[in-house]
Amino acid sequence: MKKMNMVIAQSGGPSMVINQSLVGAVLEARKSPAIGKILGARHGILGILGDDYIDLRKPSVKKLEAIAATPSSALGSCRRKPDAADCKAIFEAFRKRGVGYFFYIGGNDSADAARIVAEEAEKAGYPLVVYHIPKTIDNDLRSCDHTPGFGSAARFVATAVRGDDLDNRALGGVKIDVIMGRDAGFLTAASALARTRPDDGPHLVYLPEVPFSEEKFIKDVKSALKKFGRCVCAVSEGIRGKDGVPIGAKLGSGEKDSHGNVQMSGTGALGDALAKILKDKAGVKRVRADTFGYLQRSFPGVASPVDQAEGRAAGEAAVKAALKGKLAKGTIAILREDGRRYKAAFAPVPIAEAAKYTRSVPKEYIARNGHDVTDAFIAYAKPLVGDLPPCEVF
Amino acid sequence: MKKMNMVIAQSGGPSMVINQSLVGAVLEARKSPAIGKILGARHGILGILGDDYIDLRKPSVKKLEAIAATPSSALGSCRRKPDAADCKAIFEAFRKRGVGYFFYIGGNDSADAARIVAEEAEKAGYPLVVYHIPKTIDNDLRSCDHTPGFGSAARFVATAVRGDDLDNRALGGVKIDVIMGRDAGFLTAASALARTRPDDGPHLVYLPEVPFSEEKFIKDVKSALKKFGRCVCAVSEGIRGKDGVPIGAKLGSGEKDSHGNVQMSGTGALGDALAKILKDKAGVKRVRADTFGYLQRSFPGVASPVDQAEGRAAGEAAVKAALKGKLAKGTIAILREDGRRYKAAFAPVPIAEAAKYTRSVPKEYIARNGHDVTDAFIAYAKPLVGDLPPCEVF
Repeated sequence: MKKMNMVIAQSGGPSMVINQSLVGAVLEARKSPAIGKILGARHGILGILGDDYIDLRKPSVKKLEAIAATPSSALGSCRRKPDAADCKAIFEAFRKRGVGYFFYIGGNDSADAARIVAEEAEKAGYPLVVYHIPKTIDNDLRSCDHTPGFGSAARFVATAVRGDDLDNRALGGVKIDVIMGRDAGFLTAASALARTRPDDGPHLVYLPEVPFSEEKFIKDVKSALKKFGRCVCAVSEGIRGKDGVPIGAKLGSGEKDSHGNVQMSGTGALGDALAKILKDKAGVKRVRADTFGYLQRSFPGVASPVDQAEGRAAGEAAVKAALKGKLAKGTIAILREDGRRYKAAFAPVPIAEAAKYTRSVPKEYIARNGHDVTDAFIAYAKPLVGDLPPCEVF
Repeated sequence: MKKMNMVIAQSGGPSMVINQSLVGAVLEARKSPAIGKILGARHGILGILGDDYIDLRKPSVKKLEAIAATPSSALGSCRRKPDAADCKAIFEAFRKRGVGYFFYIGGNDSADAARIVAEEAEKAGYPLVVYHIPKTIDNDLRSCDHTPGFGSAARFVATAVRGDDLDNRALGGVKIDVIMGRDAGFLTAASALARTRPDDGPHLVYLPEVPFSEEKFIKDVKSALKKFGRCVCAVSEGIRGKDGVPIGAKLGSGEKDSHGNVQMSGTGALGDALAKILKDKAGVKRVRADTFGYLQRSFPGVASPVDQAEGRAAGEAAVKAALKGKLAKGTIAILREDGRRYKAAFAPVPIAEAAKYTRSVPKEYIARNGHDVTDAFIAYAKPLVGDLPPCEVF
């Protein structure tokens, strides 16, 4: 068997466990006599284009384990959609470096980038095994029951909302928490895991899957204030009106990445706009809005243990599948096994199943009132997130 | 010795350890034969005015310990400055309930409220021992070397900035993190504890103690981008120009509490305004801003162990001092003992020393360049915050 070199890279938004997938893949690759050099490209395909690599055979296992436990993308990331010229340059670079395996860790846009590279490689007659390794805190890959990165971000969100609910108990009024998730509301839905008591917040949960109406919002808040004397709202950054245009995007800078995604995180505009609505039109005196922002994907020390283990396993599974040669261009589907105890399975499937298009929160997870989640969602998300720090009230 | 009843309450912004002080005081009071009923007033003096109490002899020690470990103010809080009519009503309420001890846990405004109650009690001839128990994440009480609540909030901030710095390493550009602290920059300064490597962020730290200039900000950011290829800025919500008016207050709603404090937290306006400056005037393409908001004081599971222990000890010390009868109106000064190992001491001092006026970050903690802290600040803050989750980079 002729040894081939491999390139691995990270792309898209960082997560708390994307380095687990990197280290899982690297340690698995180190076991195989079929793999020569293990090259980590810095900043995704930009590192390939710029010949900027880290030799991943060098770091000790101890160092790699420390990297695995660290949030964010240790190799650096990018948001670049490769065009035909990029692909040509990539194959030249790969040829020069003797690369036969390419692993790309990321979300649906990164899967699409890997798909493009794989298809262009076929067209160009360049022999390349391409595997996408799933990662996204948005949890919106169609190929997966759930995605590495989600459990930990959801854990941050649920913990934050649990604390924020206690803060709201102390000082009253309305608190709005704006949560990440451009198109899918899974992360916002996870705020409901904060609850343990009947009067615990979040009292209202707004997902991008349900058209947002200012009138309903005002009515919901008034009703919650009447019932609880206070109100905590979990709002997705991606909420949109009946026109389907995200409200946050209308308020923001309009900045787009090369996949066409409008910037929505890293600004407090949506939270402030919603707070203003409640002050001006609902007569609520004390309204505060926090936008959880990048802490959701990068806060050290709060990763979900299940998510960490699955991030690791996804990286290992991709290398195993690539070496078995079942698919020339694959991704790892993360499935949930039947049974009373939660257990995940990892299966290679065609990369197209993860690429480009996303999935939304399914209807059975959304409460009929349009501002909450169902018990089915709680049952789905709880094992991924794990136990939160307990909190007690009088 | 005639038994007297006691009232304890919490006031001002919650913290991660204000319940430690509550539980410390309650458990200490339970030991004394001089104290009869232990009444927790809900929502500070509002609970006294509304005769809304919790019987704090009832909960089990286990329940109280769970409360102690929970962030936010378990009794509820308020931001009310008592006037003469309030005080008259308070003494009537205290007389009816046989109250001889009053403990008020909070920051400088709460100390001032307690001072007013104590002085009015003297004038009215109502026999009342009043103790303020220090709490503020802002760390700005003049009577203390540092204040319970600060170490834990600082731990959240430093941990968040450590993670955010990794996020910025992955995707580049400029990241602005807006941190709490209306008048004092201690919490923003604590972001510097995130650093372990020479190129770690925060690369720029802006405190309210140093007049903020847009020109300097732009120059600083350009210089950091040149040096590091990226830039993480820690900015206090209280930064102000040469006119002394907080920039965030100019952008905000103008909402004030009864102590005259303008609302600055719970809005993303300052971060967004600073991001716009860098995009428009410094030509930086990728700028993101997060406002850490209420998570800084309420996120469960990240409290500093030293801070927890000191919050507890402050509550105990106040009850001990009140029972010894050394001062009729006191507060607990938290001092730092000399010596190589960090150790705190707790001493009763007159309440006026904590009331109303705040302290700023001293000059020796501010770097000469005006956008960083000194090693002396790191040495000061590190024992209060403890070790952060380790993070590794390639």
